[in-house]
Amino acid sequence: MRKERGLLIVLSGPSGVGKGTVRKELFSQPDTNYEYSVSMTTRQPRVGEVDGVDYFFKSREEFEALIESGGLLEHAEFVGNYYGTPLEYVNETLDAGRDVFLEIEVQGAAQIREKAPDALFIFLAPPSFSELQNRLVNRGTESEEIIQQRIATAREELEMMSLYDYVVENDEIQKACEKINAIIMAEHCRRERVEKLYLSMLRGE
Amino acid sequence: MRKERGLLIVLSGPSGVGKGTVRKELFSQPDTNYEYSVSMTTRQPRVGEVDGVDYFFKSREEFEALIESGGLLEHAEFVGNYYGTPLEYVNETLDAGRDVFLEIEVQGAAQIREKAPDALFIFLAPPSFSELQNRLVNRGTESEEIIQQRIATAREELEMMSLYDYVVENDEIQKACEKINAIIMAEHCRRERVEKLYLSMLRGE
Repeated sequence: MRKERGLLIVLSGPSGVGKGTVRKELFSQPDTNYEYSVSMTTRQPRVGEVDGVDYFFKSREEFEALIESGGLLEHAEFVGNYYGTPLEYVNETLDAGRDVFLEIEVQGAAQIREKAPDALFIFLAPPSFSELQNRLVNRGTESEEIIQQRIATAREELEMMSLYDYVVENDEIQKACEKINAIIMAEHCRRERVEKLYLSMLRGE
Repeated sequence: MRKERGLLIVLSGPSGVGKGTVRKELFSQPDTNYEYSVSMTTRQPRVGEVDGVDYFFKSREEFEALIESGGLLEHAEFVGNYYGTPLEYVNETLDAGRDVFLEIEVQGAAQIREKAPDALFIFLAPPSFSELQNRLVNRGTESEEIIQQRIATAREELEMMSLYDYVVENDEIQKACEKINAIIMAEHCRRERVEKLYLSMLRGE
């Protein structure tokens, strides 16, 4: 009998929005039942960081060899350092029927969108939505410059989020985690998924 | 500024699956923040049933006048009695930005699918999925008749659920409620919805 393949969950969003904080909170909860895929990097470990927990720390040569051999699901370079997602762990975990959770930058998410279109893409947004609302409502009390800046930011975010399936505002960490968990639970109830399982069972797979 | 319209949530499924029990449990939870749309019927109230709470009890003439004037979102006739959903309450509540929850038969759900394709359709399924799995796994221990019957039921359900967005198995009431709440929360985070709100705000609506 065929086992349902796990779900690839991609959490991303603008830099500084708090992706790492939300991810850490999710994985500190006892009933979180998806696997965190540890990223790989060539940057030096910071004090307290543990190899294999915070990152897999690799040399530039090792990292470039993995890029060459197609061993990364996505990768990007920031200020002279590589960051990426090892493909093997992701595939093995998904094949075992377990969900895999990635927390990555928007560039990496765009690469995955191309390679794995059936992944679940969640955009973590700053609470600019409600802020924007306030700014527009209280036009009189804010300078026109601030209003225009806020609108420009909203437009940028809007463009960025167009590749994603869901948008979660990070106005409150607990609330954001609750929404992310709800999205993952709902995704497992999607009719197409359930239907596929029924059909494969009826076929005796 | 435009207010987000509420979500129309339709819970349906095969008769006897426990739709009413699940709905009552959902609305007994203190943090349920969507509105139950009370159905209308021409059948006699049973002992303990309250007009406007369990149903709106109407005469056949009143009900048929509503059908004529287009005042029902859906309706069906069972064993000589009409059942239906008053359209006005649904529209007013949605326009006020609140979600409306309907618990109806599959025939009614199919009517709404035509009239309101952007509603959220949840199929409550009997725990036949896992049962089916057991039957198929334990082929030796069950009569061929029972296995074939189980497969036939699964095929029927499969056909029925094809109009729905989500499938929730009613193997445990609390678990089913949790999944339904997750689906509704996730739906509010869908990128298309959030995008639409951003855009309408940027346009100053």
